[in-house]
Amino acid sequence: MKIAILGFGSVGKGLARIINEKNLGIIITAVGDSKSGIIDNKGLDICKILDNKEKTGLCGDMKITPELILNSADYDVLVEVTPTNADTGQPALEYIKYALSKGKSVVTSNKGPIALEYSNLLKIAEENKCFLRFEAAVCGAIPIIHALEHGLAGNNIKRIYGVFNGTCNYILTRMSDEKLTYQQALLEARELGYAEADPTYDIKGIDAAIKLVILANTILGFHKTLDDVDITGIDNIPSDALQLAGEDEKTIRLIGEIDVENEKLRVSPRILLKNHTLVVQDTLNAVTAETDLAGNVTLIGKGAGSVETASSIISDLLFIRECNGRRY
Amino acid sequence: MKIAILGFGSVGKGLARIINEKNLGIIITAVGDSKSGIIDNKGLDICKILDNKEKTGLCGDMKITPELILNSADYDVLVEVTPTNADTGQPALEYIKYALSKGKSVVTSNKGPIALEYSNLLKIAEENKCFLRFEAAVCGAIPIIHALEHGLAGNNIKRIYGVFNGTCNYILTRMSDEKLTYQQALLEARELGYAEADPTYDIKGIDAAIKLVILANTILGFHKTLDDVDITGIDNIPSDALQLAGEDEKTIRLIGEIDVENEKLRVSPRILLKNHTLVVQDTLNAVTAETDLAGNVTLIGKGAGSVETASSIISDLLFIRECNGRRY
Repeated sequence: MKIAILGFGSVGKGLARIINEKNLGIIITAVGDSKSGIIDNKGLDICKILDNKEKTGLCGDMKITPELILNSADYDVLVEVTPTNADTGQPALEYIKYALSKGKSVVTSNKGPIALEYSNLLKIAEENKCFLRFEAAVCGAIPIIHALEHGLAGNNIKRIYGVFNGTCNYILTRMSDEKLTYQQALLEARELGYAEADPTYDIKGIDAAIKLVILANTILGFHKTLDDVDITGIDNIPSDALQLAGEDEKTIRLIGEIDVENEKLRVSPRILLKNHTLVVQDTLNAVTAETDLAGNVTLIGKGAGSVETASSIISDLLFIRECNGRRY
Repeated sequence: MKIAILGFGSVGKGLARIINEKNLGIIITAVGDSKSGIIDNKGLDICKILDNKEKTGLCGDMKITPELILNSADYDVLVEVTPTNADTGQPALEYIKYALSKGKSVVTSNKGPIALEYSNLLKIAEENKCFLRFEAAVCGAIPIIHALEHGLAGNNIKRIYGVFNGTCNYILTRMSDEKLTYQQALLEARELGYAEADPTYDIKGIDAAIKLVILANTILGFHKTLDDVDITGIDNIPSDALQLAGEDEKTIRLIGEIDVENEKLRVSPRILLKNHTLVVQDTLNAVTAETDLAGNVTLIGKGAGSVETASSIISDLLFIRECNGRRY
């Protein structure tokens, strides 16, 4: 299986390194980002490219654009891991559309295009008999899409709810366990690399909300946008609130919830018993699906990180290969 | 998709009822158990058969044997849900082999054949270009096979461990929370239908051990038997031990573990912190996979029950249909 990788930040680099180290039968024929690109249809020398990128900031030749890669590289699957733009989905959206329209399957970790245009992208994929997969776009390494799409197939899903943002979960865990203020916990999260310099996207609940939109539109067939989500972040929670909850064997977590029957999406801080399944520690994510047959099924794991994201991307690549292999 | 169901106990009846109620595009053309059977290639009247079974103990005609169903009914998939025989796997093993050798896919909840002869059965399935799936054989409604097989594909699995037996988990939960003795908790479990009249299979750890053998042989490619598992049950745990653990914010759970590197399988009571992810309540099951890329991924859900088992069987049926539909 030959793949082209567009986006060569921490996820793209991590993925390339892992595919290079593991013997998975996946050959990387092209790599590109906004500044440069490189193509070798026999398979790239990944160590050299990673080295170049570290030394020069470039992964290849500045004349090799993403468009050139999409057009002229030899690949079965496009791995699209450019930065997320939640408003327009670009440039990822165009890359994905182009690849699918040429009959190339796409695996992406990019929330923007999936949240904004899933039904349209799926239509292009189906028309061109190829796959669009996005396990890495929701909850990092947790195989939530596989579980909902296949593991719980045939169930009516009544509710999906859980901890969808590791940064917020880390901050709330530290406020609760160490009696830190919100500002202290945020500072710590920044120092550890769990929060960005501008943490708005995480702490205001927007990241969790986008993941709800993706699950709603892909698994449940809704047509929601970010504006449809009722969002409250964690930046106004006083540390007193966590201490008070703690005295009662409770704590606070930022919970995202899809109420399927009422088609309502909500992200908000909630008070939960400390021994509740969804009260996970530090940067973990946890998601419960409430179903008619299987009852409640919960998945817990790491929601972020370049290696964890690579895990989900690789699972999607291998799934596409397995499905294509069954063309007998 | 047309299916034949062999085995018409609680799982078979539950499955037939649900398929009849849900509009999944699955037609049941034959049903049989050890006493009787019925075939209608246009689709059976399930309500009538369930009614007959309740009134007479028979699902059909005593002249219609499982062999006759396997030979002469029109089905794409055999759903094999006869009682488990952990020693011989029979008669299920022969039914499964027969169907696979005729190119019919098989979905089973039966631990015996999978634990005893997976590699052989898989070979027959591959030779005949059909599927053998068994999600329901391990941890009821938890989609553990889907998660390990596809969701974590590409990962090296280092360890699989967890709570694989709901009966034991119920007894230990009650001993811990309500300070019951083992005998009192077992009695309660029996009254609630969580434990059989002869609870040996569960409380001695054999059921959990078989599930480990299945995961080891199917997901990890080992060739283990029940004799390879180091097993300690829960019947010798004094209630004092749980009280002592409780004073230290700990508790006891029956944990099954596959140590992949050392190829060791073990079932034994272990002391865990009460807030450990695997300390689930009542009859729940919980399984953690420790991996190189995804880190630890945990799945929690209902490990038994006829509706829950039907959930997993249906997910396998729909997966087979989806894979076959992708023959373009």
